[in-house]
Amino acid sequence: MSKLKGNLVIGQSGGPSAVINSSLCGAIQEALKGGGIDGIYGMHHGIQGFLNEDMIDLRRQEAAIIAGLRRTPSAALGSCRYRLTDTDYDRVLDLCRAHDIRYFFYIGGGDTMHNTYEIGRRAAESGFEMRVMGIPKTIDNDLPYTDHTPGFGSAARYEAVMCMEIVRDTRALQYTEVVKIVETMGRNAGWLTAATALADEYAPDLIYLPERPFSQDKFLADVEATYRERGCVVIAACEGLKNADGSLVAARQDSLNRDAFGHPELGGLGQHLVDLVMGELKLKTRLDKPGTMQRSSGLCISEVDAEEAYAVGAAAVSLAVAGTSGQMVTLVRESDQPYRFSTGLVPLQKVANQEKSLPDNFINADGNHVTPAFKDYVRPLLGGPLPPYVTLASHRVPKRLPMPASGRRKP
Amino acid sequence: MSKLKGNLVIGQSGGPSAVINSSLCGAIQEALKGGGIDGIYGMHHGIQGFLNEDMIDLRRQEAAIIAGLRRTPSAALGSCRYRLTDTDYDRVLDLCRAHDIRYFFYIGGGDTMHNTYEIGRRAAESGFEMRVMGIPKTIDNDLPYTDHTPGFGSAARYEAVMCMEIVRDTRALQYTEVVKIVETMGRNAGWLTAATALADEYAPDLIYLPERPFSQDKFLADVEATYRERGCVVIAACEGLKNADGSLVAARQDSLNRDAFGHPELGGLGQHLVDLVMGELKLKTRLDKPGTMQRSSGLCISEVDAEEAYAVGAAAVSLAVAGTSGQMVTLVRESDQPYRFSTGLVPLQKVANQEKSLPDNFINADGNHVTPAFKDYVRPLLGGPLPPYVTLASHRVPKRLPMPASGRRKP
Repeated sequence: MSKLKGNLVIGQSGGPSAVINSSLCGAIQEALKGGGIDGIYGMHHGIQGFLNEDMIDLRRQEAAIIAGLRRTPSAALGSCRYRLTDTDYDRVLDLCRAHDIRYFFYIGGGDTMHNTYEIGRRAAESGFEMRVMGIPKTIDNDLPYTDHTPGFGSAARYEAVMCMEIVRDTRALQYTEVVKIVETMGRNAGWLTAATALADEYAPDLIYLPERPFSQDKFLADVEATYRERGCVVIAACEGLKNADGSLVAARQDSLNRDAFGHPELGGLGQHLVDLVMGELKLKTRLDKPGTMQRSSGLCISEVDAEEAYAVGAAAVSLAVAGTSGQMVTLVRESDQPYRFSTGLVPLQKVANQEKSLPDNFINADGNHVTPAFKDYVRPLLGGPLPPYVTLASHRVPKRLPMPASGRRKP
Repeated sequence: MSKLKGNLVIGQSGGPSAVINSSLCGAIQEALKGGGIDGIYGMHHGIQGFLNEDMIDLRRQEAAIIAGLRRTPSAALGSCRYRLTDTDYDRVLDLCRAHDIRYFFYIGGGDTMHNTYEIGRRAAESGFEMRVMGIPKTIDNDLPYTDHTPGFGSAARYEAVMCMEIVRDTRALQYTEVVKIVETMGRNAGWLTAATALADEYAPDLIYLPERPFSQDKFLADVEATYRERGCVVIAACEGLKNADGSLVAARQDSLNRDAFGHPELGGLGQHLVDLVMGELKLKTRLDKPGTMQRSSGLCISEVDAEEAYAVGAAAVSLAVAGTSGQMVTLVRESDQPYRFSTGLVPLQKVANQEKSLPDNFINADGNHVTPAFKDYVRPLLGGPLPPYVTLASHRVPKRLPMPASGRRKP
């Protein structure tokens, strides 16, 4: 493969993650090694900014800033959600020619891989030599052909730690705040919601995933039974839960609420369940809705995830320099104990616009929790044990008085 | 003061915090030093569990577990929200006599200090010698006579880090998700909501506190003006916001929603504001509602806060052993640079059922943000700088093409 000289552009797309900047860092640091790459440009707000010819010069950044990207959550270049039109694709190629961009990298999920594939295809068709690579990123873990996606490990760690803390909180106040609903992110795939189970003994009592149709009656029966058995209930519920007919359990009807890709806007599921439990079971219920914190927090960065995100960014650049194009870098699980990974490749066309749901063997028979196999799959990606919070042993002081006629003090 | 021999009981009350267990740790480790204290008992779920004679033997816990309390959020003994009746107070004293409890410690906020005062008063009236001390705890920072409360520093750090991350996320996706509402905790006092400002350049654009009456028209005008100026808007809004007539802006009307102290249950403020902005301004708006995570997360423990929480627990025990009773331990700010504190005392009667709001000089003239004086007050309590996330410098790549006739790509 001939050496291709020219400039490089890289962009970030879709929802931010805790480690999407680690991928950016890996790509930049690899590009800085040479190999024929001249200018290193960053799209400001992804392809949408690129169309406005808005690019940041990454060669002019201080090395400490580039290195710091590895520990900085959210999308440092700015991101976008933008569906390209035919006119847009033409302008993308015009801009690539005008700036002599020969290396095109785009970090994102399934929609992004579609855009990236189209740009590569159209460049080739027009006879413009440009190497185009997709770098995977999504907290949702819903890309096929890769063991998991960079961003998922840290988000899974966040879910597990958050639920461990929320369950401890709920049990501490179980006389007063009986039911807690945690609304978690996910449109069609329940990976993140399921990751709450990694809190182990402090996992939610019930976990509802979009892979299983939601039944209001079954849900209420589950909550009531758990309350009777345990005295309090923590529920992780995916915002994208659907009824048996495929409709969202709680969709916002507002006309504003449709994103650039035509997806209906989620939100309101958690409050819907709170109202349901309070109305039907008369149990005091609270909502925690971590919302965008699930994707933007740097407090639970998994070391494994940060390393993998870096690796896929760096691999995309080194492979492109060596001649590869039209591929997305994947993660391959080499072993579990100790956990080791390598990177692989999949054609962009195969991964474009795809979504990978939780397989059946990761969901329990009742459809309200996960299986040990799921936890085995996720655990290495958390990058280490959860915080070592302690629990008092239950040694009781012997009683000396009879219980008064009025009985136990419950509110 | 004569040496008082007997057993000790300690309990935790109200909402958990990141460092309430640090106070428990301080009290236990001080009690273990001797000084006439025999049994060291923990109320299981506060006074409510105590009434059920449900106590955990803290002398039988491993030293590593006791030490680990210092880094463990939530209430390790279990907590409660319970209003004592006259009958209950009688039973509390019966139980204290039956168990020869001569040292009574209760960790909590204003309601708790009232209970603690009453127990001490009634014990003295009945001629039962028992030393009774209050240990302050509340993330809300609303207790008077103390510079601040243990639990606030860590919760403030959580608010600041969370908002820094949310603002970065919002700015990264500012082409698509234009307005973000962050609903923060606080019934009548805006300390926690205001603490979001400590994110400095990544602070929310607008901060609404319950100390100022909420005006819907002013709010919408603020949001629209900020959007026009900055392209996206992050708003921190206290769940306890009130209208000019004192009514809650968004109260839940459900009859379940009243706690043991008769306070109406909060919740729904954030969604109310989301609906308002989407309906009136037609701007795409998202809700983040960290809920109980604000009080139960151990991810942002402030070292200063953990140390102070430990100190007030230890001081309560050492002072009681030395003869003090009927007091709450306070925190005194000795100096700001470097930050140093000492502990003081205030009679329980004075602090019982009191609430301390943000003073006027901490709120800006527009009533939609804080003043530098507030930030100066809070900063030392955060226990150190926020995470060192990096920001790319804005060096732009020079443009080479004219903007197409269709103009800039905005969704």
